[in-house]
Amino acid sequence: MGCNLAIAGVTGAVGQEFLRIIEERDFPFTSLKVLASSRSAGKQVDFKGKTYTVEELTKDSFEGIDIALFSAGGARSKEFAPAAVEAGVVVVDNSSAFRMDADVPLVIPEINPEKIGEHKGIIANPNCSTIIGIVPVWPLHKANPVKRMVVSTYQAASGAGYSAMVELEQQSREILDGKAPTMKAFPCQIAFNCFNHNSALGADGYNQEETKMVKETQKIFDCPEIAITATCVRIPVMRAHCESINLEFTEAITPDEVRELLGAAPGVTVLDDVEHNRFPMPIDATGKDDIFVGRIRQDFSLGGHRGINIWVAGDQLRKGAALNAVQIAEKLL
Amino acid sequence: MGCNLAIAGVTGAVGQEFLRIIEERDFPFTSLKVLASSRSAGKQVDFKGKTYTVEELTKDSFEGIDIALFSAGGARSKEFAPAAVEAGVVVVDNSSAFRMDADVPLVIPEINPEKIGEHKGIIANPNCSTIIGIVPVWPLHKANPVKRMVVSTYQAASGAGYSAMVELEQQSREILDGKAPTMKAFPCQIAFNCFNHNSALGADGYNQEETKMVKETQKIFDCPEIAITATCVRIPVMRAHCESINLEFTEAITPDEVRELLGAAPGVTVLDDVEHNRFPMPIDATGKDDIFVGRIRQDFSLGGHRGINIWVAGDQLRKGAALNAVQIAEKLL
Repeated sequence: MGCNLAIAGVTGAVGQEFLRIIEERDFPFTSLKVLASSRSAGKQVDFKGKTYTVEELTKDSFEGIDIALFSAGGARSKEFAPAAVEAGVVVVDNSSAFRMDADVPLVIPEINPEKIGEHKGIIANPNCSTIIGIVPVWPLHKANPVKRMVVSTYQAASGAGYSAMVELEQQSREILDGKAPTMKAFPCQIAFNCFNHNSALGADGYNQEETKMVKETQKIFDCPEIAITATCVRIPVMRAHCESINLEFTEAITPDEVRELLGAAPGVTVLDDVEHNRFPMPIDATGKDDIFVGRIRQDFSLGGHRGINIWVAGDQLRKGAALNAVQIAEKLL
Repeated sequence: MGCNLAIAGVTGAVGQEFLRIIEERDFPFTSLKVLASSRSAGKQVDFKGKTYTVEELTKDSFEGIDIALFSAGGARSKEFAPAAVEAGVVVVDNSSAFRMDADVPLVIPEINPEKIGEHKGIIANPNCSTIIGIVPVWPLHKANPVKRMVVSTYQAASGAGYSAMVELEQQSREILDGKAPTMKAFPCQIAFNCFNHNSALGADGYNQEETKMVKETQKIFDCPEIAITATCVRIPVMRAHCESINLEFTEAITPDEVRELLGAAPGVTVLDDVEHNRFPMPIDATGKDDIFVGRIRQDFSLGGHRGINIWVAGDQLRKGAALNAVQIAEKLL
């Protein structure tokens, strides 16, 4: 049952989360190889009572490996994943490098696990804000197809890596001490501020994060006709994303129906306590596997009771990245 | 030209902003009376080279006053504004107490200044998130009626008063020091977190902040048929609100048309620098009078080019509260 496992990008925020999740879930591996850039090569990683030495990620890293979890950035995935596939490895890639390739399955195990079997060596992990947003939309879409989604995100620093989390902390201290905030990981002040997502903007004015949400959802749902528009924003939160999602359904739907569907959905926890004004927050989702959903309301701005608003929170490093990839690897075994 | 002016709630965050704005704009007053609750009575307020003593707000406070700016909470407005009107005062009230009364004008000077003349003693200042959201929507709506708005807010601590701003700072320090955050002004942790607006929830699941945005906009636009749905969220930012606004128009509209209309609109600054990924942030709007607008994009999820997304930022204490009220008072003179 065990496999020879490699982790590429082990020193990053998602790489470290891979290790935690593999330990928690007792993922069966017979050997483990930890890989990173030359900068991190030689570092020691303590894991499950053993010490591993980080090796430099090269095209020769994959001899004898069965599964490789990649989270080393799109450029490194593009460079090294094909060599891994060549060596017979199945790559679960957390970068955006291969997500939209027609012959690469883009998988959320709660939604389209059947696609895993179609892989040709690479399986792509969707973007964090896509996963966190659509895990709870899928069971609704299956029951009553979603025609249109309007999404606004409230995204944590962790999506920009470990250095961005450190920067949020550093800037917060600096501002509280009356100093100018240091900006390195982010182009703008993140502490006590928010800004539109710092990915490249297309000619249509949408940043990559927003375009990913549209294209990836259409691919994962296997539904090119679902209409989606998104506004992606970073807020000064450490590692859980929230999203405000407005849904237009094909047929009438009630908040109680939504609660019932989500109550039975895998990977979803409904936290919708109207009496106590208690709904999902980043601190609720931090360190948790499930996507939390609340503020389930009829949208009265749409006729025919076809509109619903929901609010979701999910850990960006777990279900938004490492957990989803490990779940894919588990299904591979 | 001068008037005898009273400020009720002078020691609060909005009350203090009243003073700053009156000074900056050289608002013409011949006398000034500063009022607050009994708790603050006797405090000294230095203003334009003079020292004023805070008097307790009572029904007898308004002898000889021409205009009173109220920001002392809804309960105090309900108790004391009628007595002020009785004494011949015109009240500009920042609370929600009278906003939806049929014979109380609800005014944003950039939108419906003509309503000021219809007052019967009280003019209501709209809610902060309503003002900040709709100042830039109005010039678009006039050119091409908005059929539907989907709004998600990113609201600052200041909307909950001065104590909430202090609490954001205190909690941030505590969390950075590894301590548990103190919660008094807010029911939830605000530092490094976000939560749905802490106003009372209606039977429909919407909090008061969201319902205000719907009802107030319909009244201010004099357009009961405009369909609006809102999700109002607090984020760890000090004093400027942001909003992600999705607009469905009656006819086709382009981002360039929106930029042109907003470029000519009073109270609006377009900050939409796609080349440098530079769009409005809370720190841009802080201390500024205008509402900043960017991320002006076609919403391709709506047919017929009838959809537009915008992102706005505005100072909650200025245009969202004190500035708008002082602008109304200026028009009264």
